[in-house]
Amino acid sequence: MDIQTYDVVVVGAGPTGENVSDRAVRGGLSVAIVEAELVGGECSYWACIPSKALLRPIHALAAARRVPGSREAASGELDVAATLAHRDAMVSRFEDSGQVSWLESAGITLVRGHGRLAGERFVEVERPGGTTALTARHAVVLATGTRPAIPPIPGLREARPWTSREATSAAKAPRRLLVLGGGVVAVEMAQAWRALGCQQVTVVERGDRLLGRTEPFAGALVQEGLEDAGIQVVLRSSVRRIERPDPRGPVKATLTDGRIIVADEVLVGLGRQPATTDLGVDTVGLEPGSIVPVDDTMAVQGVAGRWLYAAGDVNGRALLTHQGKYQARALGDLIAARAGGLAEDTARWGRHVSTADHAAVAQVVFTDPQVASVGLTESQARAAGHPVRTVGYDLGKVSGAALHAEGYIGHAKLVVDSVREVLLGATFVGQDSAELVHAATVALVGEVPISRLWHAVPSFPTMSEVWLRLLEEWGR
Amino acid sequence: MDIQTYDVVVVGAGPTGENVSDRAVRGGLSVAIVEAELVGGECSYWACIPSKALLRPIHALAAARRVPGSREAASGELDVAATLAHRDAMVSRFEDSGQVSWLESAGITLVRGHGRLAGERFVEVERPGGTTALTARHAVVLATGTRPAIPPIPGLREARPWTSREATSAAKAPRRLLVLGGGVVAVEMAQAWRALGCQQVTVVERGDRLLGRTEPFAGALVQEGLEDAGIQVVLRSSVRRIERPDPRGPVKATLTDGRIIVADEVLVGLGRQPATTDLGVDTVGLEPGSIVPVDDTMAVQGVAGRWLYAAGDVNGRALLTHQGKYQARALGDLIAARAGGLAEDTARWGRHVSTADHAAVAQVVFTDPQVASVGLTESQARAAGHPVRTVGYDLGKVSGAALHAEGYIGHAKLVVDSVREVLLGATFVGQDSAELVHAATVALVGEVPISRLWHAVPSFPTMSEVWLRLLEEWGR
Repeated sequence: MDIQTYDVVVVGAGPTGENVSDRAVRGGLSVAIVEAELVGGECSYWACIPSKALLRPIHALAAARRVPGSREAASGELDVAATLAHRDAMVSRFEDSGQVSWLESAGITLVRGHGRLAGERFVEVERPGGTTALTARHAVVLATGTRPAIPPIPGLREARPWTSREATSAAKAPRRLLVLGGGVVAVEMAQAWRALGCQQVTVVERGDRLLGRTEPFAGALVQEGLEDAGIQVVLRSSVRRIERPDPRGPVKATLTDGRIIVADEVLVGLGRQPATTDLGVDTVGLEPGSIVPVDDTMAVQGVAGRWLYAAGDVNGRALLTHQGKYQARALGDLIAARAGGLAEDTARWGRHVSTADHAAVAQVVFTDPQVASVGLTESQARAAGHPVRTVGYDLGKVSGAALHAEGYIGHAKLVVDSVREVLLGATFVGQDSAELVHAATVALVGEVPISRLWHAVPSFPTMSEVWLRLLEEWGR
Repeated sequence: MDIQTYDVVVVGAGPTGENVSDRAVRGGLSVAIVEAELVGGECSYWACIPSKALLRPIHALAAARRVPGSREAASGELDVAATLAHRDAMVSRFEDSGQVSWLESAGITLVRGHGRLAGERFVEVERPGGTTALTARHAVVLATGTRPAIPPIPGLREARPWTSREATSAAKAPRRLLVLGGGVVAVEMAQAWRALGCQQVTVVERGDRLLGRTEPFAGALVQEGLEDAGIQVVLRSSVRRIERPDPRGPVKATLTDGRIIVADEVLVGLGRQPATTDLGVDTVGLEPGSIVPVDDTMAVQGVAGRWLYAAGDVNGRALLTHQGKYQARALGDLIAARAGGLAEDTARWGRHVSTADHAAVAQVVFTDPQVASVGLTESQARAAGHPVRTVGYDLGKVSGAALHAEGYIGHAKLVVDSVREVLLGATFVGQDSAELVHAATVALVGEVPISRLWHAVPSFPTMSEVWLRLLEEWGR
């Protein structure tokens, strides 16, 4: 068996694995990165990038149609073929040579194959031609991410459902699409495929609202947006049974309320599961199929010797590309510091810890309206025992929004620690609200008190002026 | 003569006057506000609002045309009549009843007429029917703003040039438009009228770039945008002489370089002058026609007794609606506190001072590309003696921007105090960059150090991810 030794072995070459490798190399270490599929990972090919490529023309066209003057000029039909071709270009036609070149330029060694932990500081990589053994002098990093969860609904797996992969890469719209779940993948892809040609889209969500982890108004406004687009939203229901007798024929879904929905494809948007089922985590006493529990330095809990780390979705802290990259930067630097015997900075908000995972995770749902949020919702903040006061404001009443789109619909809310008077969370819902949230992230992370935020004057007439309105609601 | 007494008399009912009045009333004081023209001021009728109403459809259409899929659907022509009608609606057809209703609901007394200081705590208001004398128990606030400057170029005044008022309210595009100056009004209105039907637009700027007070790359990128739209930009030149022999005929301009430009209208965008020529400021020892100098509490310098204040454009601190409103909030609260014998909070970043005027003034130029900036440019920071390090990044290389528009063109730059490692300024240029700057404003005002900003993770794939790229340029 071929045995190679590196300072660091990283399993998984998505954005998290790439970034942790890059930081470790910059810190003077040698790094091997193991990847069984495409370098660049889920985000580049089957998630963030293709979903936004599918959605952007839909939203750009809707935006032009909401302004007198451009409305009249934008009356043509969305070009579905051009949209799909653009999506294909944005995912590099499922070809990772660009990412491989980046690895090379960054000085990272790529080992293609399926990697598995095989004991302390030891990773076996199964390749078509045989097995490579990688030993790590300093650290092994698990960064394998997640896979779509397929819950045990009778008939679901046999019906070969779409997951986020098929939903972002499909070459044409099914005539009828059934979407299971009301989370981010579900609402984004429902909206995309409805605009790209689906005649019937039905979203079935068990809970009492869409986007259940966001502020309730966010789910309500997105539901209005979907319904305005002709999508049927069924709440407080789920699928009891799926049938697809003819593998090339339609799917028949029986809901818990007895309703029957027939569709040409069914998309499962019911969450993710960590990609740890075949990762050898049992060799270090961890449970295959579960998340890999870590502390704020990404060190795997319960494993002695400071050699095993897990970053990105696989640790379950925050299932978002940007948050995985954030963890990766801190971790790559920490591994290099520890290898070099340099000072560690693991205090709260230090260089080598991912403090923001607990306090300031931002997320944007790219529907129309968009949902941009950071930190805690009101209910999360109250559940965590914070003293809470909230303020809200109708984004449509902000001059900048009214100028941006006629009849602009949106809402903004701040969740504030009423004793310290610093932000705990913020949510902005509305067309093009995605870029509004970073100001809240900075305020939250910087722990900038409300009294100081009064001096951060948004430019008139931007949509960011909602900040002034929110402060006015708070009161001087 | 009718004599009325109020706690506070405010001269000028633009956004600044309205806000200082509102805060004073909320603080328990009686307020009379004097206005010679429309309540709501320049911004509502002849500046911010109509200019953005004219520009937004142009930019919304351009945005849709930059994305494959929507491009094909947005191939019609901008509807000029619809754009102008929308502009007219957004300025309430030059009718201020909505604003008057707001004054009433806020408990502010409107006195229509031309107000003039006539000694200590005393304002005379000249109305068509006679004169009203207003005495102020606590404070007189000057908030008359500015007027377009008409420099002494031979023939210019006689040629009856467009100012910002005519440029934002015109009912049709002239066939040929000559624009004097390269500032905000000049570049915004050049772009608007070119798209709305001008066959020839020429911008003549004396300096070596457009938008001379912004970072040099901002002027360069806006120039490219204007030139791509078919606008001619002439730098390092100015108009020596203007002739308009037939008052209904064309204008002939002779430039300093000898060039002759013939146009149907000429727009003067050569700065503003304070509206103090007929304000009675000589009765308190100030110079008519000059700015009214104030300290950080907006108290007029050189006037004893703490009764005279000036807020908004008229004090020359920052000629922007939002900054005037900011000063107004602090001032209204201060006047109420002083009247009630309450504590004053006039320390740096306190409630009753306008500290941000020196440090964190944000501004957006609504051209395509947009220019959104806050704080100091690099050259301003160096001139002020700060230790400076800057970082820049090509916005088009950010995934969120590439998804937003094909071939996205833009650039971002941070100006950082290299010792304290806090922001001094930031500039974002590119399509839809307007909402990117508020995060910088919060960072600047909150004095959030770079080490902490690493924890403010922008959501992928938004344009705000440029923050990560800028930090990476800075280095960990």
